[in-house]
This record gives sequence, structure tokens and C-alpha cells, in this order.
Amino acid sequence: MGQITAQKLKGFRDYLPEQAKLRRQLIESLYHRAELAGFLPIDTPAIEYAETLLGQGGEETDKEVYRFTDHGERSVALRFDLTVPFARFVAENFATLPMPFKKVQAGEVWRGEKPQKGRYRQFCQADVDIIGADSVEADVEVMTILAQVVTTHLAQPALGLPAEKRRATMSVGHRILLSELIRFMLPQVQAADEVKVLIAIDKLAKIGAEKVSALMGQIPGATLEGAAALLKQLTQRDADGNTDLSALPAALTQKIGAELDRFQQTMDLLRALTAGTSVRCVADLSIARGLGYYTGVVFETTLDALPGVGSVSSGGRYNDLVSRFSSQILPGVGGSLGVDRFMAALEELAIVSTARHGVFVAIATEDARAYAFSLAQELRNAGVMTDVAVKGGKLGNQFKFADRRSYEWVVTVGSEEQQNRSFSIKNLATGQEQKQRPLSELKNAVQGK
Amino acid sequence: MGQITAQKLKGFRDYLPEQAKLRRQLIESLYHRAELAGFLPIDTPAIEYAETLLGQGGEETDKEVYRFTDHGERSVALRFDLTVPFARFVAENFATLPMPFKKVQAGEVWRGEKPQKGRYRQFCQADVDIIGADSVEADVEVMTILAQVVTTHLAQPALGLPAEKRRATMSVGHRILLSELIRFMLPQVQAADEVKVLIAIDKLAKIGAEKVSALMGQIPGATLEGAAALLKQLTQRDADGNTDLSALPAALTQKIGAELDRFQQTMDLLRALTAGTSVRCVADLSIARGLGYYTGVVFETTLDALPGVGSVSSGGRYNDLVSRFSSQILPGVGGSLGVDRFMAALEELAIVSTARHGVFVAIATEDARAYAFSLAQELRNAGVMTDVAVKGGKLGNQFKFADRRSYEWVVTVGSEEQQNRSFSIKNLATGQEQKQRPLSELKNAVQGK
Repeated sequence: MGQITAQKLKGFRDYLPEQAKLRRQLIESLYHRAELAGFLPIDTPAIEYAETLLGQGGEETDKEVYRFTDHGERSVALRFDLTVPFARFVAENFATLPMPFKKVQAGEVWRGEKPQKGRYRQFCQADVDIIGADSVEADVEVMTILAQVVTTHLAQPALGLPAEKRRATMSVGHRILLSELIRFMLPQVQAADEVKVLIAIDKLAKIGAEKVSALMGQIPGATLEGAAALLKQLTQRDADGNTDLSALPAALTQKIGAELDRFQQTMDLLRALTAGTSVRCVADLSIARGLGYYTGVVFETTLDALPGVGSVSSGGRYNDLVSRFSSQILPGVGGSLGVDRFMAALEELAIVSTARHGVFVAIATEDARAYAFSLAQELRNAGVMTDVAVKGGKLGNQFKFADRRSYEWVVTVGSEEQQNRSFSIKNLATGQEQKQRPLSELKNAVQGK
Repeated sequence: MGQITAQKLKGFRDYLPEQAKLRRQLIESLYHRAELAGFLPIDTPAIEYAETLLGQGGEETDKEVYRFTDHGERSVALRFDLTVPFARFVAENFATLPMPFKKVQAGEVWRGEKPQKGRYRQFCQADVDIIGADSVEADVEVMTILAQVVTTHLAQPALGLPAEKRRATMSVGHRILLSELIRFMLPQVQAADEVKVLIAIDKLAKIGAEKVSALMGQIPGATLEGAAALLKQLTQRDADGNTDLSALPAALTQKIGAELDRFQQTMDLLRALTAGTSVRCVADLSIARGLGYYTGVVFETTLDALPGVGSVSSGGRYNDLVSRFSSQILPGVGGSLGVDRFMAALEELAIVSTARHGVFVAIATEDARAYAFSLAQELRNAGVMTDVAVKGGKLGNQFKFADRRSYEWVVTVGSEEQQNRSFSIKNLATGQEQKQRPLSELKNAVQGK
């Protein structure tokens, strides 16, 4: 049989060890923080009925869904996000779920989009959601968890980031407030054209107010004065960078008093809970986050040092999660950690760590093999990362391997060490060596004591 | 738009919170033990070229692979194990990998097989492998890690298993020794028919020696005497349950002395390293583990209390991993934790835990909301699992919810508690209550102090 070229599909990637490790850490820290806060993990299949994912009209085909026919001639598809399968999960398992239901779930999703730098056809979504509660508390709970995870990673000492690169901004908007503001400022724009205004506003950070204003001018019913007034409201900030809600027209404020009040409470609580973290939370009514879907608070998080990377964590309130499957009205709020994007950002930000770490047990003579393994096991059981020579050969080659793996310590044992229950040790960073230390000192020795 | 029935595909499953939690714990403990031992995580895509997974002849179609054509008209497939993609990964990334390369990887795989009780079309594989080393050390390293993970879970106190249900047996065989034994006892069987003998031996545990003997009798060239002698060798055990290697015919022992010696060393080291764990390791030459593939040691692990569940962890040595992609000879040894099967076994074994756990912060009056969240955050930062009321409403309903979630403590705060920096607390297991304790006692209080 001829050989096959070893190649991945276009748009897919391997994760080499350093990348796979960081990716797992990001996912784990979301699970850790979420589970500490009473969120429950769930899992759903990667494959679902195409109709489940796409609706009866197949309306979401813009996501370039991977569809195919399975062995039983069913029309099926790979999930393109975790939200639609979660809706199916909730509708199907509703009776067994405690309400409000707080869930955390990370998993792979697939989209056959044109591959771009840093964007792949398979990527990880890591979501927290609370369904069955429409409250300030639920909104803040979701946002706080995500802010904490972002902080955990920006602040980790191993990354060695200077303080100014550790900062991130969570910009929080509100879809109802934004819609009401649009209707107030551009009253002649038809409801069907409101979407165009949202699309224009969504581009504010990228193309600036002037170009957005020009875009708005082309929307039927929009006046230049109205567009200018709208943009002024959206871009006018108080000293802390928040949309200046006190500058809203009194007539509008009166109309949307309840929503405005809730938004203010949300921001107050969110700021109190994220004080002292790396994430600064600002009210930003210009955050639109796509078109349909959201029905309340919306948020996105950018790294201050890398605004171009885009949002590393985002989400919002949606109040018709299960409507595709059930007539039930079930309010929800959710957010995602953009695992692969955050990973790319951390790789771009970080000073590459060259710190040595861990222990390698070298075997000088084969009769000391069992002794070597018993030392390795003792260290592992004490929580010390310890590799052991699994390929015999010259001691020099074993040391070269330990150096390549960036281990900090090489513990060497041979006949002599085995006989007198000792070990020899070398620090690969400093070059310092000690011969024949008694076994009882092993744990201290690999801590430099 | 009409509603769609919420349903999973046949052969697929959801993981409800308790199941998803256990599954993650199993996967995490493999990563934990493996990374402590210097194994490196990697990840590969779920979708590959069909040719990569199936070879040029598509020879593995017995696995009922999910194949389809992608947006670029490429013939692609979902991976049916992690081994073939790992071979592609190694061939493609060879230059960057330290050799010997120790890897750990867990991931979903898909097989369109007929669904059976406890077997699904999507399941998790969790593998450790060492490539680039053909040694006793490498074999033992892989088997020890897996034995430790099995022990970790059988012995965890939360499971409450009595000692006799915590035991497992790792049966270790050797494919070369078994082949040589077959050739010695059944010299008239053609090489092409040897596979039939292996298939018969593979059924030993299920159908017993008598029926296996009858099966062997039908194989061309096999004599009844030879079959009986072979079965006697395989089933004859020493006092510890090991295949009695000292009873092998002297002429055979002489021929395969080197392999026998290595096998004995492997068993000795493995037993030393698993002493005191839940896993007893026995030499069992009747372990065949499928047909092609393995070229040395093979092993499988069964729970003593649930032999019918089958193997929860298995693997062996293979020495031609990358031959599909490269002319290189790369020795390897690997093993899997059967995550879903082990999970099913633990669920079957375990006394369902009814222990209450965690804290719920109830909000008596809405003005105490921020205060409630600050208490929750303090507990979470101290590592205490703490939920908080995200749906307002009557205090009674908040308590009902806390009870349904099996939380141990309810901490209640309202106007009064907020004003005098205190909290009220109730233990849901004992019913004991305390009012207005000072905030400084919060962490002690939720530990029953």
C-alpha cells in the first residue's frame, strides 16, 4: 500500500503541547469559577438533526453548517454553536432541571466559513447561561464569572504580563435602551429598517463616528440631524468612559425609566463585584451585538493592550431560547469565553516563559530501574511533575532530553545510589550538582533546599 | 413557524449535570496523573480527510465511519478513534516533538454502530501514549498511569464504595509470547489461520475453555491434543492468578527467552508500582485484544465487582504507528481510559450520594442584593461552592430551591443583616438556625463552626 500524505484539512488546526495546555487551562478556569458559583455542567452531542439546528426553513445557512446524511438516511448536521443544542436540551429535559438553571458547557463547534488568520473551522465555545430568571442578579452573575476568568488568566504570574497589559474592558449595553434611543432620535425610520441602524452602530469602534454617520444618512427616513444626535448620545462619555445616561433627553428617560433603572442597578452591582479585578466595566449603549436574538443587556470584553483582537468574551440576555421547540416563555442570559481568540491574544501578549520546571529521573544503570521509578512515584504523589527515562541509552542523551523538555532538575540513580538509598541531583538552570544525597532529602532537594 | 420536536438522534445521549460532572472528573484525573508524569497534552481536529482515517482502501469501514463531502467537495470523515489522527499528527509535526514523546489526549469520537445498552455513537476516548521508546519503562509507565486513575475513582470517599467493590484487575498479556505459544502447540495451523485461534482465545472469559476448545477443533491443522495443551497453558494459574510461565515447555522457553525475560521484568516493575492501589496486576497470556495492531504487551482492566461491564481501560504496544504516512519505524505503547464505560460502571456500583454540599445565599429584601453578592463572592474566593438567589420572590421559594439543589447551608440576608453587617444561617440537613451572626464568622459558619 502506498503512503498517504499526512495533512490536515484546510481551515483546521492541531494544538501542539504548549497550545493544548493553555487551551485546557482556559476551559478549566471557566468550569472552576462557574462550578464554584453553583453552575452545573452538561453535555450534548456534536451531531443533531439538521432541523433541530437550522429550524424548518434552514434559515441559518449563513453559518456554513456541516450537513450530511447519516447511515439511517437522516439529514443531520454538526453543531455550529452550543446555544441551539442547549435549547433542544432544555426543552427535552425540562422536567428534571432545577429552575432557575445555571449551566456551564464547553465544547467544539464547526463552521465551514472561509478560514482567516486566527479563525478556524473548528473552535471551542465555553458558555455559562442562566435560564428561568429575568433579573439584575442573573445578568450580573454571568458577567462577573466571565470577568473573573479573564482576570485569572491576565494576572497569572507565569505569564509575566506587566500591569498595563493586564487590563481589559467589559463594555455593557442594553438592546432595549438602544432601540428606544434609535426610535427617539430617528422617528421616521421604519421598524423594518431599524436593523440597518444597528448594523451601522455596530461598526462604530471599527470605522469611527463620521463614517457611521454617512452610513446612517443612507437609511430611509434617517435625517442627518437625527443621526448626529444619536451618535452624540452614544459617544458622549463621562469621566470614567461610560455612556452618559444623565444626558439622555428627559422625554426618553421618562418613557424607559424602568429599563434605565435596571441597567443602572446592573452596572452598579457589576462594578462592585469586579472592583479590584483586571476588568473595568463600562456602560456603553453603542454595543449592539448582532441583530435578532438579544432582548436586554449585551456585553463584550476587549483587552486594552490588543483592541484589534476583538471581543474575548461576550453575551447578553435573550428571552426566547426554547421557542423553536416549545410554546414556553423561558428567559435567559448567557455569555461565552472565546477560548481560541483569548488564547491567540495571550500568546501575542505574553513574554515567552523560559522558566524551567519539573524533575527528570535519569537511570544510570539498568539495575536501578525499579529504584528510579519508586523515586518518580514518590515525587508525583507529592504533586511534583516528574518524568522518568523511558528510553535507556547513554546518560548524556538522557540529560539532553531533560534539557530539551526544559526540566529544572535531573535526579540520577544507578547501582551505587540504589545500594545506599541515595540520589544524585543537578539543577539544569544553575548547573549545580550534588552527589549521593540521602533519599529522605529527595522532596527538599527538588525544591532547591 | 411551526414548532420542531425536541429530540436527539438515535444512538446519541445528553449528559445531565451529575453525569457530566463525573465524566469531566474522569477525564481530568487522567490529565492530572499524566501531566504529573511529564505527558504532554495535544489536540487534533474531529474532521480529517477520509483517506487519512481509512487508508487508501477504506479498509476500516467496519467501524461505520461518519463520512461526507464538505463544502470544498473533499471526502472527509469524523474520527472514529484518536490513534489514527495521532499518527497523522506525529508524521506532520515530527520535527517539533521531543522524542520519546509522551502524550495525553481526551476527545470525542464517532462510530455509527448499532446502538446497544451503554454504547453510543459518540463517546469519549482518553489516551496516554509514549512513542519513540521500546522499553519495559515505557510499557510500565503507561499501565501505571491508567491503574492510578482507576484507583483514584474507585477509592474516592464520596463514592462510598466498600473495600470489596473497590478492586480491579489489570490482566497483562503479550502478543508475541501468545503467538509463539500457539505456533508451538498447534504447529500444523497455517500462519493465515492463526487469527482464528486468536479469535477463539479472545472468547475464553466469555464462553469458557470447553467451548473455546471446540472452536479450535474446527480450525484446519489444529489437533484436539494441541488445543487442549494450549488451553491448559493459558488457564493454568499460580497462587496469585498469574499464567504459570514456569510451566511453559522448556523448548519454547529457550526460543523466546528474551521476550519472556522482558515480560517478567515488566510484571515485576508494574506490581511494585501498583502495590497498595486498587488495581491488582496479573500476567495473563490469554489476553489477545483484537487482531492486527499490537506487537508486544497488551492489557485490559476489569472491575472485580462488575466483570460483565468489560474492560474499563486497555491498550498495548504497537510498533508501526506512522507507517501509513511515513517509512519511519516508530515504536509506541498506549492505553485508553474507557471514560463512558467506566462512568456507567461507577454509576452501577455507587451508593447514590445524598450528602448535602455548598451554600445558597437567599435575599430577603432587595436592598440587600449587593450585600448578598459580596458575601457570595467572599465564600467563592475562599473556595466554597456558593450559589446566590438570581430569581427574586418569596423567601420560602428560595429555600425550596436551595433544598432541591441539595445545598447544605442557606445564608439569608435582608435590610437588617445588611445594616449591622451580619447574616442568618440555616443548615438544611439538621434544620438548625442562627440569626444575625457577625459577618466575620461567615467562613466558619458554613463549616459548621
